[in-house]
This record gives sequence, structure tokens and C-alpha cells, in this order.
Amino acid sequence: MSSIIFINERGLIIIKTTKQIELTGRRLGDGKRPLICTPLVGKTREAILYETEKILAKQPDLLEWRVDFFEGIADTCTVIDLAKSIKHIAKDTPLIFTRRSFKEGGEQISLSESQVVRLYSAICESGNVDIIDYELMNVKEDVNHLRNISKKHGIKMIMSYHNFNCTPEVDALSEKLIEAEHMQADIAKIAVMPNHLEDVLTLLHVTLDAKQKMKIPVITMSMGAYGSLTRMFGGIFGSAVTFAVGENSSAPGQVPIEDMKTVLAILQRVTGEE
Amino acid sequence: MSSIIFINERGLIIIKTTKQIELTGRRLGDGKRPLICTPLVGKTREAILYETEKILAKQPDLLEWRVDFFEGIADTCTVIDLAKSIKHIAKDTPLIFTRRSFKEGGEQISLSESQVVRLYSAICESGNVDIIDYELMNVKEDVNHLRNISKKHGIKMIMSYHNFNCTPEVDALSEKLIEAEHMQADIAKIAVMPNHLEDVLTLLHVTLDAKQKMKIPVITMSMGAYGSLTRMFGGIFGSAVTFAVGENSSAPGQVPIEDMKTVLAILQRVTGEE
Repeated sequence: MSSIIFINERGLIIIKTTKQIELTGRRLGDGKRPLICTPLVGKTREAILYETEKILAKQPDLLEWRVDFFEGIADTCTVIDLAKSIKHIAKDTPLIFTRRSFKEGGEQISLSESQVVRLYSAICESGNVDIIDYELMNVKEDVNHLRNISKKHGIKMIMSYHNFNCTPEVDALSEKLIEAEHMQADIAKIAVMPNHLEDVLTLLHVTLDAKQKMKIPVITMSMGAYGSLTRMFGGIFGSAVTFAVGENSSAPGQVPIEDMKTVLAILQRVTGEE
Repeated sequence: MSSIIFINERGLIIIKTTKQIELTGRRLGDGKRPLICTPLVGKTREAILYETEKILAKQPDLLEWRVDFFEGIADTCTVIDLAKSIKHIAKDTPLIFTRRSFKEGGEQISLSESQVVRLYSAICESGNVDIIDYELMNVKEDVNHLRNISKKHGIKMIMSYHNFNCTPEVDALSEKLIEAEHMQADIAKIAVMPNHLEDVLTLLHVTLDAKQKMKIPVITMSMGAYGSLTRMFGGIFGSAVTFAVGENSSAPGQVPIEDMKTVLAILQRVTGEE
């Protein structure tokens, strides 16, 4: 976490607090714009590796492998081996490993939750991913177990909350982020669905509040068409990562990476003076 | 004003209320994105006509002549003649005529307020402009007088409020917009300075509220670097016009017209589905 204090043209003191995501030994990005993460959502090994190659050419900052889309998810060795192949192609681009639960908008899979936890444990032990994402609403023992395992192997952990139906109130959303921090997440993430534009402002308000009060970086977004605004402008309010479409989207409202880069570059230019 | 009611992919009823600016005999824009207005801020006749030519090539939707920058402002005939020349170059692009008062961020001029009112009256009578902008905080009799004169000559009137120091609270800002509507403005405008990002959300909140409650179109913006966000995505929250830089800016945080067009096109694409 770095803070820059300076005085702007109107004589106001501005404190810029940029919370960057840190992997073991390196800090990602420059803190001036959100990192762009593109999802891998292929069903087969071939599709996923093809997707990885194509996406890498578009230079995202992060890759997220949504393993719940992968048809081989039940075979731990196959998953570990594929993660290794993705890492090989991705080189320095960090890889997030995510099984998004069906309850929070992911694909339906054949594994029980204890099998999922064993898969996450095995992938941590393999060292073939940089970050794991596990939902905050899972059984506390499982969350704690994966926190311990990931920490032991130098892998960072996102604790996430998704709501595809609505945007809870400010306090309820803030609580999710704070809970993730209490449970020792490295990064807290919330993704919620707006039912009207006021909900988009609620999400930005919560993000700004977290930027000021929390110690860990947060990733926030409002989903759907109107929510896509927050994917573009959320970085200014404190979201550390934005998800953009490389080849195929993994959630409603994701913006193509090319458009995202264009908008972020313009934003950086016009808001850069402050 | 047109309302479109439809049901989105999640079964929610969405009411889209698009308030468009209407000149006598025509409605401006398609209501899907805010109109882009570029200011003319030259000091001399030559500079202003050169600026008009250059800006027109960039195809703004509206031009605003900030006559307080013009060194010939004290000579009514010169002003009327120059307005005529601008209109000649601008062809179908409507022209807003604005003397921004020094108290609200404009240039210092040699005219008394009663001379300014006479200048506005003469320009309305000449028919060489399409819209006038006069500050809401001026003496009520003057505002009413210009409202009557402009109406008589088929010229639309913006009543505006600017605050270069801060962003008043939600209720105070809403009151300005409502007051403009009560005073029979065709368009209500507020431009305020944010001192922190929360103020940017306040401005968007007020805009959204006005979109739902008011009958006339509103133009809103948060100024400065962070406020430039609202210049880009304020249209989604209900602002009918955004000011962009053609050749030279007239207020802090204005985005170059090329960047503005790029961002608005991306926004229209990604939010267009709802």
C-alpha cells in the first residue's frame, strides 16, 4: 500500500491511497489504473489453451481460469497439468484459479464441496497458480483451510461475494468486504447486479468507502449493461481489478479488452492531473 | 420527452425516459447519448471565426459562444454581427449564446448587468442564436425579462448554476434544477466542483433524481479532473449535454471532443443492450 499526499491546483490536500495487489516478491501494476483480468472459460484443454494464446496477445494484466467451465474438473491431475500448461503460455502474467460456485453464478459441476476444497488444496500445493478465488459464503472451516494452505504455498487468496439478483444496501456490502479482511483474505471481491442506476452509485459508494477504510485491495463491480460503467470507472473509486472480455465473457456486462484499454487510457489522461 | 417501456432479460420492467432538447421545429439528437457541445472562447473576431471553422470539422452537436471572452462584447452591433457570421459557418449546428458571469466562473467584462441584459435582449431579437444561457442567481426580474424576450423570438433558454468551489448537498442542488423549471427554463444546468470523489457521486445522484422527476432536460456536470468522469458518463444518468474541448477548454476537466466521442461510442455499445 502506498500513499501519495500532494496539494492540487485549488490548494486542497489530496491523499491518494493506491492499494496494489502483491504476489510473492512483486507488486502488480503501477496503481494508476486498475489491472485488467480476462477470464478463460473454455470447456476442453484444447479450447482453453487456444483461448490463452489468443488472449495473451491482447496483453491483459491477469488471467482468471474459470475451472467450473472445464469438463475435466473432476480429475485433479488433469486440472493441475492444464494449469501448468496455461502458466507456461502465460509466462509472467499471473493466473487466478477460480471455481465459481453455482449458487454465485458459476457453472454446475459434478464435484461435492469437499472435493472442490481438495482440488483447491492440490492446486495450491502444485504451485501452478498465483491466486485462488473462493467464495466468502462457503463453510467457514473450508475458507480457513484454503487460507492456510494457500498461505503456506505462497499463493494469494481472493475471498469473493457475488449476487446476480440485486445490489444489497451499502452496509451489507461493506460488511462483506470487511468480513473478507477479517478472514485474512489478500483481496476482497464483490460483484453485484444493479436493478436500477441508483444501485450502480451504491456500488461505487461502497468501493470508495473501502478505499478509505480497508487495508487490503478490493475488487468491485456492478454487473449487467449499466453496471459495465463500474467496470470502466470503478478503478478511480478504488477497485484494483476490472474483468474484461478477451475471447468470451464470464459475466454479464464485461467490456471487450480493447475497449477497456481505450477507455482506461483516456481516463488516465484526463484524471491524471489530480 | 419520450418514454420507452420494455422488459429486460431478467424480467425487470425498465422505463427509459429520454428528455431531448427541442429547438423550434426540431428535436436535437436521438436521446441515446448526450449531445456534445464545444465552447468558442476566442478573444477576437478572427480568432472566434477560426475556432468555429476548426471545431465544426470535428462535428459537435452544439456550439456555445462564450461571449464574455470576446473583447468586442461592449459593442452590441459587433456582437450581433459576429453571431451572424458564426451561424453562417455553423449552418445546422445550433448556437448557444452565453455571457458567463464573473461570479460563476466567467471572464471579467466591462458591462454592467443591465447592459448585459440589453445585450441578451438584442441578440434574441436578432435571431442569430438558438439558445441563450443566463444564470439562475441573477436578479429575478432580469431572468424573467430574458425568459419573455427569448420566448417571443423562438429562442430557447438555459438557466444555469455554477459553483467552482464546492458541490452543495443533494437537496440544495436539486432545488436549483427545480427552481429553473419553475422559472420556465427550457433546460436547467448545474456545474459544480467536487472536493472529493463522494461529490462526484452526489452530482450523479442529483442527475438521476432529476431524470425521474423533472419535465425539462437537465445538463449537469462535476468539474475538475475527477469530475471529468461525469462529463463522460453523466449522459447515462440523465444529463442531456456534455461540454468537450474543440480547440480550447472553457472550464476545468473538459475532455477533448475526439476522446469524448470514443468513450460515448463504447458506452453506447456496452450499455445499449438494456
